[in-house]
Amino acid sequence: MQLPENLTEVSSHACFGGVQKRYQHTSTLLDCEMHFSVYLPPAAIEGPVPVIYWLSGLTCTDENFVQKAGAQRYAAEHGVALVVPDTSPRGEHVQDDVEGAWDFGKGAGFYVNATERPWVHHYQMFDYVSRELPDLINAHFPVKTERSSIMGHSMGGHGALVVALRNTDHYASVSAFAPIVAPSEVPWGQKAFTQYLGENRDDWAEYDTVHLIGRAEYQLPMLVDQGLADSFMEEQLRPDLLEAACNDAEYPITLKRREGYDHSYFYIATFIEEHIAFHARHLSAE
Amino acid sequence: MQLPENLTEVSSHACFGGVQKRYQHTSTLLDCEMHFSVYLPPAAIEGPVPVIYWLSGLTCTDENFVQKAGAQRYAAEHGVALVVPDTSPRGEHVQDDVEGAWDFGKGAGFYVNATERPWVHHYQMFDYVSRELPDLINAHFPVKTERSSIMGHSMGGHGALVVALRNTDHYASVSAFAPIVAPSEVPWGQKAFTQYLGENRDDWAEYDTVHLIGRAEYQLPMLVDQGLADSFMEEQLRPDLLEAACNDAEYPITLKRREGYDHSYFYIATFIEEHIAFHARHLSAE
Repeated sequence: MQLPENLTEVSSHACFGGVQKRYQHTSTLLDCEMHFSVYLPPAAIEGPVPVIYWLSGLTCTDENFVQKAGAQRYAAEHGVALVVPDTSPRGEHVQDDVEGAWDFGKGAGFYVNATERPWVHHYQMFDYVSRELPDLINAHFPVKTERSSIMGHSMGGHGALVVALRNTDHYASVSAFAPIVAPSEVPWGQKAFTQYLGENRDDWAEYDTVHLIGRAEYQLPMLVDQGLADSFMEEQLRPDLLEAACNDAEYPITLKRREGYDHSYFYIATFIEEHIAFHARHLSAE
Repeated sequence: MQLPENLTEVSSHACFGGVQKRYQHTSTLLDCEMHFSVYLPPAAIEGPVPVIYWLSGLTCTDENFVQKAGAQRYAAEHGVALVVPDTSPRGEHVQDDVEGAWDFGKGAGFYVNATERPWVHHYQMFDYVSRELPDLINAHFPVKTERSSIMGHSMGGHGALVVALRNTDHYASVSAFAPIVAPSEVPWGQKAFTQYLGENRDDWAEYDTVHLIGRAEYQLPMLVDQGLADSFMEEQLRPDLLEAACNDAEYPITLKRREGYDHSYFYIATFIEEHIAFHARHLSAE
């Protein structure tokens, strides 16, 4: 692969017959240096493969999923690439929460395009994960450039659902583990949206799955997974609100409730095979 | 499970139908508080299951393997428990390398019983992983107490081989990823053995696989795995010396060379399924 000057390979490891790579690049949109990870399955040697994007949760970088989910095995089996962005703009010149909170600022971009100062300058994660990064991937990696799929965890599950529901023509399917489905109604979302987007709750609705679910142009295949021993479920995640919104909108979601499972990567590792198989099925039907 | 007063559960996560747990306990032998991790497969609900021990490499704690190897899936499938100790004694009162080296002192116990001051007091990792911890596991967990199996990575591959070769009646099988097979001949081992064991190289031989391989009381089934893109292979790991020693001793080792794979957990994750299947086969033949 011929890489442009502002895209650098940071590491490369053989993994399940393919290769797990990490890159640094200059994001024009975020005005900072960003890292992202790419897993290329063995099939990518022979020709372009479909892509699944993974969006991570609060406090994560691109590395948590790559190291802890065990997803490469299934990506190799199904012949799909995995692309994993970071969760916020990064760098010393990027404003962080003044108190260093873990649920706001760096590591907590919430996949929105901020409109409020000082966040508006760098915090444009919605466009970064839905436009700038896919354009870069499509230009420089051996991937199929039609539709891709997208999935994520917690804040990243929120991101995946919102990105997909607002761009139904770009995605073949969407899934989420323990997503924040109603950010306007829960403490994490309210804290982030107030600061990134301001006080007007109409603006919040553009980034709120339960508001978007009835407005999607097309009913994208959707799989949502929730551990029933997840300590964030009742206050922050609210799968009940998603289920109600899907019922109201007659949106045919698959909602899997997992007895005994919590919010950790041990839970994700257990069920990621199902999610990758789900996406691979819809990607191959393209 | 009824736990004694000096054994505390630190965390518990559902994982592949079983449960990934972490414990803290007071080690009499090491005279400090230690952590270890245990994965119990679904089969452990119905009755005692066989155990595979995993010994980790330099700088690791018990958590690296648990989070990064993806081994729980295969342990669940084969109905075996995984027990993962830490790599050295721990705590502020435990002597560390004065320069804070990553290849000596804490995180680098080399699975020896130190004889030299100041290390002799806490650094008794050989007896800890081969006697004290197994006794604790056998007493308080739903495991089969006859033979177990043992495996490890790098320094922990060395540990697994040495522990098994010196206790052939306690183990059903042994395997290693990228082990240090000739510590007496390589920089990592020479640095550690000089300080833990003193200058007498006869004492080193008790902890050196290529010296022990011809002296084993019984030819335990042995699987050794080596990535050919491992940057430590030629200077520190020396699989060529293991192969020569096995040929001399007519010890029927299975040595797998993996083209393109390095020293990382991405390599371990790719091949851990084979190792667990290997051990499960020998454990079930007991």
